[in-house]
Amino acid sequence: MANPTAAMLVIGDEILSGRTRDANMYHLAGELTRHGIDLREVRIVSDNAEAIIDAARTLSQAHTHVFTSGGIGPTHDDITADCIAAAFDAAIDVREDARALLAAHYESRGVELNSARLRMARIPDGATLIDNPVSVAPGFTLGNVHVMAGVPAVFEAMVASVLPGLTGGAPMLSQTLTVHRPEGEIAGPLSDLADDFPELSIGCYPFQKDGAFGANIVVRGRDGARINAAMTRLARDLGT
Amino acid sequence: MANPTAAMLVIGDEILSGRTRDANMYHLAGELTRHGIDLREVRIVSDNAEAIIDAARTLSQAHTHVFTSGGIGPTHDDITADCIAAAFDAAIDVREDARALLAAHYESRGVELNSARLRMARIPDGATLIDNPVSVAPGFTLGNVHVMAGVPAVFEAMVASVLPGLTGGAPMLSQTLTVHRPEGEIAGPLSDLADDFPELSIGCYPFQKDGAFGANIVVRGRDGARINAAMTRLARDLGT
Repeated sequence: MANPTAAMLVIGDEILSGRTRDANMYHLAGELTRHGIDLREVRIVSDNAEAIIDAARTLSQAHTHVFTSGGIGPTHDDITADCIAAAFDAAIDVREDARALLAAHYESRGVELNSARLRMARIPDGATLIDNPVSVAPGFTLGNVHVMAGVPAVFEAMVASVLPGLTGGAPMLSQTLTVHRPEGEIAGPLSDLADDFPELSIGCYPFQKDGAFGANIVVRGRDGARINAAMTRLARDLGT
Repeated sequence: MANPTAAMLVIGDEILSGRTRDANMYHLAGELTRHGIDLREVRIVSDNAEAIIDAARTLSQAHTHVFTSGGIGPTHDDITADCIAAAFDAAIDVREDARALLAAHYESRGVELNSARLRMARIPDGATLIDNPVSVAPGFTLGNVHVMAGVPAVFEAMVASVLPGLTGGAPMLSQTLTVHRPEGEIAGPLSDLADDFPELSIGCYPFQKDGAFGANIVVRGRDGARINAAMTRLARDLGT
């Protein structure tokens, strides 16, 4: 059976402006692969309501799951929750369960639950909360969209909260062969291999190091025995 | 006048599988910001022809420029050039100018220009070549799509070849104020500031360090005097 598919939607001007280098996509990609969910597409959009709503709708219809990152804090530029509600035509307001979480947290620290912080309790009708063991303010799942924070430590904690509840497929396995020869010399054997092992994904990722060309050949699939067979054949064909 | 807009299309299973952490997006985002071109959207798709063609068409219609990264090497999984040709209904074949570049390069090194390497001379009709000072095999521009390599050193060299020829707008300027207070306490003043400086983009990026919360407040825009005014007001309102 084919694995579930996923898309990620990153919301953040700070990544599009080059100010911040993405970390959440890299983390999620690895976690999904281990969980047997195929990440097929990532979109990064700015803090713009129309762009967020359009992307959320499109990705939600095309994939089993959508994971979003960013835009659920207390400040004026945090508009993700309202946009996801709009994408699903759901009402949104401060919700009592989320408010209670924040109230208990801030009360225990002697900090005021002001109107800005209360924004983080805005949860669409019908959503279930995603636990945030780092800083309490919850994410949420609405339909097949999992809405999570942008701060990497919080994002990672929320991914750890969500993933165990999702049905995964067979984990993707991979083996890598590093070849210190230019890609152009190994392309022929690689193409033949890809023809003979159509159920495997065979990628060739060239690099240049100390002036010499090489490539990492990555063989991926769900059947470990077939991957082993392909690696044996590769080592023979490339004479390594 | 509004700045030109751009999108980036990253082609690569290795990023979606979590094997590789993206570097090209981060590089391009910074270069475009300096050049006065607004990067509005990034999409990352797998080595799948339909996904590449669809994304290239959509992004090409929506933006002044599209920059692609990955999939133009000599191996069987390098399908970007053919997909971009298909997206524009252009014919594609080995083109003499590109073949001559490769032939001269390989001849000087005593290396055979085999059929795999010749794949890198497949250039759509009507495209102009993008210079590759690192490893010779060219990228190309077709319509408003700039097709570049995925290897970071080559990608960066191609960006440096392309950008000077593109019309930029006013460079985006920015100033950052780091505040060692939680976001929830500064959200009110920030929201007021955003209302009073509608021509500026005011972003708040929280962090957690050594157990304490803080935030980087980034004020961006094209008018340095207005940014200065906003920063002065910020320092006053936040009492830093």
